[in-house]
Amino acid sequence: MKIYLAGPDVFLPDAIEIGRRKVAICAAHGLTGLYPLDNAIDLTAPDAARQIFCGNEAMMDEADAIIANLTPFRGAGADPGTVYELGYMAGRRKFCLAYSNDGATYADRVGRFMDVTSEDGRLVDAQGLIVEDFGLVDNLMMIHALELHGCPLVTPAVMPIDVWHDLAAFEACVRMAAARLMAT
Amino acid sequence: MKIYLAGPDVFLPDAIEIGRRKVAICAAHGLTGLYPLDNAIDLTAPDAARQIFCGNEAMMDEADAIIANLTPFRGAGADPGTVYELGYMAGRRKFCLAYSNDGATYADRVGRFMDVTSEDGRLVDAQGLIVEDFGLVDNLMMIHALELHGCPLVTPAVMPIDVWHDLAAFEACVRMAAARLMAT
Repeated sequence: MKIYLAGPDVFLPDAIEIGRRKVAICAAHGLTGLYPLDNAIDLTAPDAARQIFCGNEAMMDEADAIIANLTPFRGAGADPGTVYELGYMAGRRKFCLAYSNDGATYADRVGRFMDVTSEDGRLVDAQGLIVEDFGLVDNLMMIHALELHGCPLVTPAVMPIDVWHDLAAFEACVRMAAARLMAT
Repeated sequence: MKIYLAGPDVFLPDAIEIGRRKVAICAAHGLTGLYPLDNAIDLTAPDAARQIFCGNEAMMDEADAIIANLTPFRGAGADPGTVYELGYMAGRRKFCLAYSNDGATYADRVGRFMDVTSEDGRLVDAQGLIVEDFGLVDNLMMIHALELHGCPLVTPAVMPIDVWHDLAAFEACVRMAAARLMAT
């Protein structure tokens, strides 16, 4: 089983090393990890962004499954680039798995970044926009997509000190993917 | 042609009215707009979130195209719930359109929320994560998905005063969808 390894990990200073660790964990469970190409092409090429897109899309089309890192990125929610890939894989009817190293609810997390008030029984942010409040870790589209197109989101019982380098929740996803492979 | 109308519009206090306006604009161009169900179900039901997901997914499966509102939401980037839907529709090989009422580049926009520094020729945010810097309005996965699976992102020449209620860029997307319908 080939697994596309989506996540804002590609934006870490040690992105390539994290990718190697993730691929090694997949291999230890008999699976092939495919790590996005963001750091494997010439960033000075005029069409670098498009090359990354086309490479990543081809890799997703080749993969049987996705493990997406939905750990909150620059705000209360997951990295939109990663979420795009999760949606794409759900649309391709691939097996969808994800983890977040922050298990707080989305509504609680928005409160870390801005004032949230209660109006007529609904939570409202500083801009007057309603804050989704279903007790879920992120937007309901991702959470229920995982439940219905793969496995429920994995979160650690205790938030790791280094959310960007702790791969325990990632490995739990790999184990679920391996179990799925054994069952089919 | 049926068009799924994705966006954080569903979180506006006047979400239902915005949906009506969008559907009316579609109708004026001979198209059928399908507006997500977030505000059309009983939010006190224990499985409300799942009902919304299943309803929205069925609506996306029924639609021929998507117009996604990628206007930045609670931060520098687009609403992840909307981006999930854009990815899903790209995966289903539907026609993909989107607009953002903020035409600034993603890198410039991150600088509004946190300190961004330059290290070894790459932009780095306050957490040490690399800031994508291709001169694009948002993450390259969405921008190039639109280019390759539909039409390039629409942004207004001048940012409207009310980014949540100005529908000129939305209507430009509707016109492109109608032109596509005429051509096929």
